[in-house]
Amino acid sequence: MKIFELNESSVRSYCRSFPVVFKQARGAELISRDGRHYIDFLAGAGTLNYGHNHPVLKQALLDYIEQDGLTHGLDMYSEAKEAFLETFNRLILEPRGMGEYLMQFTGPTGANAVEAALKLARKVTGRQSILSFTNGFHGCTLGALAATGNQHHRGGAGVPLGEVARMPYANYFGDKVNTIAMIDKLLDDPSSGIDKPAAVIVEVVQGEGGLNVASAEWMRKLDKLCRKHEMLLIVDDIQAGCGRTGSFFSFEEMGIRPDMITLSKSLSGYGLPFAMVLLRKELDQWKPGEHNGTFRGNNHAFVTATAAIEHFWRDDSFAQSVRTKGKRIAERMQKIVRRHGPDSLFVKGRGMMIGISCPDGELATSICRKAFEQGLVIETSGAHGEVVKCLCPLTIEDAQIEKALDILDHAFAAALSEHQANQAS
Amino acid sequence: MKIFELNESSVRSYCRSFPVVFKQARGAELISRDGRHYIDFLAGAGTLNYGHNHPVLKQALLDYIEQDGLTHGLDMYSEAKEAFLETFNRLILEPRGMGEYLMQFTGPTGANAVEAALKLARKVTGRQSILSFTNGFHGCTLGALAATGNQHHRGGAGVPLGEVARMPYANYFGDKVNTIAMIDKLLDDPSSGIDKPAAVIVEVVQGEGGLNVASAEWMRKLDKLCRKHEMLLIVDDIQAGCGRTGSFFSFEEMGIRPDMITLSKSLSGYGLPFAMVLLRKELDQWKPGEHNGTFRGNNHAFVTATAAIEHFWRDDSFAQSVRTKGKRIAERMQKIVRRHGPDSLFVKGRGMMIGISCPDGELATSICRKAFEQGLVIETSGAHGEVVKCLCPLTIEDAQIEKALDILDHAFAAALSEHQANQAS
Amino acid sequence: MKIFELNESSVRSYCRSFPVVFKQARGAELISRDGRHYIDFLAGAGTLNYGHNHPVLKQALLDYIEQDGLTHGLDMYSEAKEAFLETFNRLILEPRGMGEYLMQFTGPTGANAVEAALKLARKVTGRQSILSFTNGFHGCTLGALAATGNQHHRGGAGVPLGEVARMPYANYFGDKVNTIAMIDKLLDDPSSGIDKPAAVIVEVVQGEGGLNVASAEWMRKLDKLCRKHEMLLIVDDIQAGCGRTGSFFSFEEMGIRPDMITLSKSLSGYGLPFAMVLLRKELDQWKPGEHNGTFRGNNHAFVTATAAIEHFWRDDSFAQSVRTKGKRIAERMQKIVRRHGPDSLFVKGRGMMIGISCPDGELATSICRKAFEQGLVIETSGAHGEVVKCLCPLTIEDAQIEKALDILDHAFAAALSEHQANQAS
Amino acid sequence: MKIFELNESSVRSYCRSFPVVFKQARGAELISRDGRHYIDFLAGAGTLNYGHNHPVLKQALLDYIEQDGLTHGLDMYSEAKEAFLETFNRLILEPRGMGEYLMQFTGPTGANAVEAALKLARKVTGRQSILSFTNGFHGCTLGALAATGNQHHRGGAGVPLGEVARMPYANYFGDKVNTIAMIDKLLDDPSSGIDKPAAVIVEVVQGEGGLNVASAEWMRKLDKLCRKHEMLLIVDDIQAGCGRTGSFFSFEEMGIRPDMITLSKSLSGYGLPFAMVLLRKELDQWKPGEHNGTFRGNNHAFVTATAAIEHFWRDDSFAQSVRTKGKRIAERMQKIVRRHGPDSLFVKGRGMMIGISCPDGELATSICRKAFEQGLVIETSGAHGEVVKCLCPLTIEDAQIEKALDILDHAFAAALSEHQANQAS
Repeated sequence: MKIFELNESSVRSYCRSFPVVFKQARGAELISRDGRHYIDFLAGAGTLNYGHNHPVLKQALLDYIEQDGLTHGLDMYSEAKEAFLETFNRLILEPRGMGEYLMQFTGPTGANAVEAALKLARKVTGRQSILSFTNGFHGCTLGALAATGNQHHRGGAGVPLGEVARMPYANYFGDKVNTIAMIDKLLDDPSSGIDKPAAVIVEVVQGEGGLNVASAEWMRKLDKLCRKHEMLLIVDDIQAGCGRTGSFFSFEEMGIRPDMITLSKSLSGYGLPFAMVLLRKELDQWKPGEHNGTFRGNNHAFVTATAAIEHFWRDDSFAQSVRTKGKRIAERMQKIVRRHGPDSLFVKGRGMMIGISCPDGELATSICRKAFEQGLVIETSGAHGEVVKCLCPLTIEDAQIEKALDILDHAFAAALSEHQANQAS
Repeated sequence: MKIFELNESSVRSYCRSFPVVFKQARGAELISRDGRHYIDFLAGAGTLNYGHNHPVLKQALLDYIEQDGLTHGLDMYSEAKEAFLETFNRLILEPRGMGEYLMQFTGPTGANAVEAALKLARKVTGRQSILSFTNGFHGCTLGALAATGNQHHRGGAGVPLGEVARMPYANYFGDKVNTIAMIDKLLDDPSSGIDKPAAVIVEVVQGEGGLNVASAEWMRKLDKLCRKHEMLLIVDDIQAGCGRTGSFFSFEEMGIRPDMITLSKSLSGYGLPFAMVLLRKELDQWKPGEHNGTFRGNNHAFVTATAAIEHFWRDDSFAQSVRTKGKRIAERMQKIVRRHGPDSLFVKGRGMMIGISCPDGELATSICRKAFEQGLVIETSGAHGEVVKCLCPLTIEDAQIEKALDILDHAFAAALSEHQANQAS
Repeated sequence: MKIFELNESSVRSYCRSFPVVFKQARGAELISRDGRHYIDFLAGAGTLNYGHNHPVLKQALLDYIEQDGLTHGLDMYSEAKEAFLETFNRLILEPRGMGEYLMQFTGPTGANAVEAALKLARKVTGRQSILSFTNGFHGCTLGALAATGNQHHRGGAGVPLGEVARMPYANYFGDKVNTIAMIDKLLDDPSSGIDKPAAVIVEVVQGEGGLNVASAEWMRKLDKLCRKHEMLLIVDDIQAGCGRTGSFFSFEEMGIRPDMITLSKSLSGYGLPFAMVLLRKELDQWKPGEHNGTFRGNNHAFVTATAAIEHFWRDDSFAQSVRTKGKRIAERMQKIVRRHGPDSLFVKGRGMMIGISCPDGELATSICRKAFEQGLVIETSGAHGEVVKCLCPLTIEDAQIEKALDILDHAFAAALSEHQANQAS
Repeated sequence: MKIFELNESSVRSYCRSFPVVFKQARGAELISRDGRHYIDFLAGAGTLNYGHNHPVLKQALLDYIEQDGLTHGLDMYSEAKEAFLETFNRLILEPRGMGEYLMQFTGPTGANAVEAALKLARKVTGRQSILSFTNGFHGCTLGALAATGNQHHRGGAGVPLGEVARMPYANYFGDKVNTIAMIDKLLDDPSSGIDKPAAVIVEVVQGEGGLNVASAEWMRKLDKLCRKHEMLLIVDDIQAGCGRTGSFFSFEEMGIRPDMITLSKSLSGYGLPFAMVLLRKELDQWKPGEHNGTFRGNNHAFVTATAAIEHFWRDDSFAQSVRTKGKRIAERMQKIVRRHGPDSLFVKGRGMMIGISCPDGELATSICRKAFEQGLVIETSGAHGEVVKCLCPLTIEDAQIEKALDILDHAFAAALSEHQANQAS
């Protein structure tokens, strides 16, 4: 690993938790250079919902490359893009009554999609402020970073991050405090100091923020609040979307109608850089090229994304399997909680975006370290890194789930006993 | 093309100039669905220096995918990344006496690399302002956009773009005005209103800005100015780098030593999303993960980039061929100028980043339209879109150059005669 | 009044509520050109705590002018300034155990004092953000305006107002919600998105915001919160200070120790432009002239302020009389409430900074209009202008109070019956 | 002076150059507590154009106070304001063909007037950026400070100062560089990075900036540029106005028509805090109270200002005397230059706003120190404090001029010989 240490900036991060060199990956497994197999409960931080190198997507990609399909074409028309547009519209949007949305292909990162959505919201409304939430994560470029809560990232900006007002997320002040009513009061009050916002940006489940979950009721109230105050509603579904919560979008069946939706991470299905903003037609006030970028509309990603949608979203069976596996994982986690700390641990999250909250970040880190030693790649999230977060591929096999949870169970046991020993001494 | 019109946002742009659906591409050729071949003088706006789907790179990528090489791994250690680090260091940095640079893999867009570089400059110096230049282009996310000059893009921000002071580029006020002396006076004057900047960000040839060229002397003075005022020097080599000007970096042999260099576009060699900041070791004050992003370190791009460097940069022969072809194109362009408008047209640019400046953008647009009808994909650049810009693959064959320039010659003739007819009527 | 309409900008405001030309004023009385006498329950929005043209202050000013005392001297040493420094220190600071505070004479407006305090807080802490409160008012220059809540004023900025995070004031969400605990949670949470602030700026009673009162307990908690998070505590005592609440400072006896205090309005005692920042010695990191202004240290104001302090603050009798009068006014107001709307009206405020809250701003405006017709100058405050606010001179005579409250009583009766008639029709 | 040192913030500044306690002042003389008389060549940094405590103004003020004229009335109608409006219109505006301007009384500081003008420009145009000039000084509150060039003051902000683009003042790059043409090019170029500004703010003579003078031709070109690019032209006449340059406004007879003019400093005539924005009627889009402040419309200042206008501006004789004295001072200064440093010293400025530029700030400071020892209060200005600046009252007597220039002559001699001695050693 000397080459990395000698040549790569110290900004590198995940490699510090998993200090091995990976060579190959298949499904829910990562394989290191020395041949060790790891179960992947990180899944590219939500990028690998269909697992590593899924054979169907792989074949589609190989075929496309073999035939010299257009790889890079800026935002010119390509057959690959056409197929994606048609397929996404037919299998995702139309069946969900969302035929009114247009697709914008931004630079192929989630942050870029967020930047585009915030720009468009400001352009359309003529207002400058954005409401974003405590513990929200939306990316690290300056526009997206202003909406992100995390001080570790915000502190890297080097300039003040403006034009964003921070609001408390669902249950931020406990489940007895109605945070929507609070926001409503602030927006109704012409002397509150909260300027009329262009938009609200929200994650339905906060991934980086620690698997905080907004209820359908809270989301409906937020949607209503947006209509009342003429703010646009932007759902950032970059981590929670593409099936992670048991439906393609995280907000399905909640009865809400976002003005924009940002997608990235698992959208290509294969881990390829790709991002998109879905926007309601009447908001499409973009001038040609007004928001641009060299890699907007990655053709390789169009190919794998189209294959993924055709393969996984023709009917509800995949989504159903996600819900079933989610329950299985949750149940195993509840057992861990009951066994190791019914008073101090608890399960958080929704669908296959779940984890166990620990009393502090040190303990959670120690658990992940021990799990890794036993062959499980898993990470923490949350404001203090206190949540052990399970983001395994949605395609994971039951046996792999069992094995991974066994490892996790042992890791909790080992870390907690070490923890108690430390406290005793 | 109805699917695009029905489903894609109106932000789409290049497709309006080239309204055909592309299917395949090889070398300097784009092939439309209906089988028409086009010579590509746009080359992904500088992303396809080695042409479309170069067979050597293609094979490396196919092999990697076949073997289930790690596709997505956040910033974990991978064999593909290791090979890239080693190869880039050995064949690019070391031979140029640049062994002191570290590599940071940012989100895979040029804008993201620029955002990272500006952040780091602010962090290291504790200052907030950045100097950027008239007609500079650095990307469309808010941090990068603040440094970008183009009003079409700036206007999309919807919020004021701050913490950047604009300075005149080389020869901006004509070749008799010493713009470096101007900047020096402003920075020396404690009452000028120009706050001490963290960094200067500069393109050695301004691609989007209209092929404006900074001389070696100007760059040396700028480098010196940076030392004098303790500002960092960031060379944005996203469009001009990777061989475009006849050497790997656009500033080679100029005797300067940038503090940071941003690379993207042709870095992967295959048109895959990829971006990197090169930074001098002593500036590496990043905390782990402080600037992050899901697709930082795209493994497919590592594979093709490594293959590209091995194939093209083992010795000077490729660079030499670029210089030769650049001269050939320039000579053909000079002929066009002499034939069609010795008083109103002139050749601009450096290496294979050259074009012909027209009196106005309308004429230039008309020329490009006519060229496209004859099978040449070519675009304008410059503040008023007045420069017909040739960014063909560096691997283009001489016969293709000749054919493309023939088309261009006819396009100039046709557009100019139409122009004159219009003016007469 | 034609001259005003022809020559003065439409920004003029109070003259619209009181459309007469005033010629003279004495004590609690304003006298119009046509000889009508008005009781003044506005008192220069809190600027005339000692009434109009108090004879003792007047004589001191006349003497000073007669003798050609220095009128304008920038911030040079003058005898008048010396006397003020000595007197303010001896009679105000020392007896209150506040000998550790230094005085800074800013430009002679409250907003300028606030600008200075915010600058110093940012300089001392190296942080950029300020916490300010819902319904807070701190002035209309851009730095102060960012901390001000009122949309009517904020909207005039024409640029986004940054580097301020808005927090809920005491009881903003009702008396069951502990707003200090909320702020503490946000500041403790490294992922809340609320950057560590340089300072908190707070009014102990919010004058423009509608006579909202912070309890001693809330202020103590806020003070503690500031220590915990190493933020400076700035009390803006511009309207509530100088005796208005029954003690010189509004926070006396609360057991808190602000880092800075801004004073203006009644500080000169005579209605002359004057402003000051009190700052704890260890914070005095100003470089000479770093914050300056032509009229900082108004010598006429030094003269009248010194006379006022000598006359009113030698012992507690004046403060005692304010408390007594405050109770008298409050009792009369309670009667009005009981008589005219025990369910819809209520008394708000503290000391002689009290008023009656109405269901809406229209009603309150109508009441004030009717009171003016009967010889009482009185205005509304609050987010919706819904509070009829009594800010009479602290020196007002009991008979004047009785007369004014009689007028107010009738005004409530008349306005409410009109209101009901309107609703019936 | 112990009381000052013990109780006043270290921000105090002029007192450091003139460490005596002043007691009285008359005309061009300051009198210290110990009875020493000083000739005042600082004049409140341009605030005392009519000298200290002018007897005519003094009597008007005494009479007003004696009669209990309204001292403080927010922006209510007062007889004093009415008289000022009528007089200023009749004797200043109408005779100069400026009857179309309205008067706005802002908070009584120059900075506050600038803040109001910038706000209104942004409101009227809907644009956010302001162009201001190198070495410009417009005040220290955040909005005005953004337009100010001086780093000493800018550095005190503690936050980035935005929404202002800095442009080179007349002759900033020498008299061969046409700075207006430069600005025009930047504004014409849609890719220059200079956003369309709401307004330009400019001083016709830069007082704090070092007595830099814009020619009538340059101002006319600037005026034209504003029309071309639809920017408002704001002349900040706070220091150069009220007769200082030999006419009431500094731009008279230049053939320009500013959209707004800010006045303060000598406007009250007596050194009382006072400020005003003159704005063309069609720009008066203010909502009532949108920009407000407790001390806007200082009645004492209305009284003295009215008296001053009646006394000094009934006919051209006063302005004529200023021009004559200006020449006298300039001639004496030219002698000093010829005698002490024809190669290194030179005279700068216009009217009675003139000074001698020295090679460096240390020398200029030393000259001022020596002059003070001999009874002359005089200060430096300029980016490096290199200009010895004469801002004596316009009412100064010829004998006082002679005496002051004699002192200055000696001070130059003494400081220069000391300087040479230092350099020799």
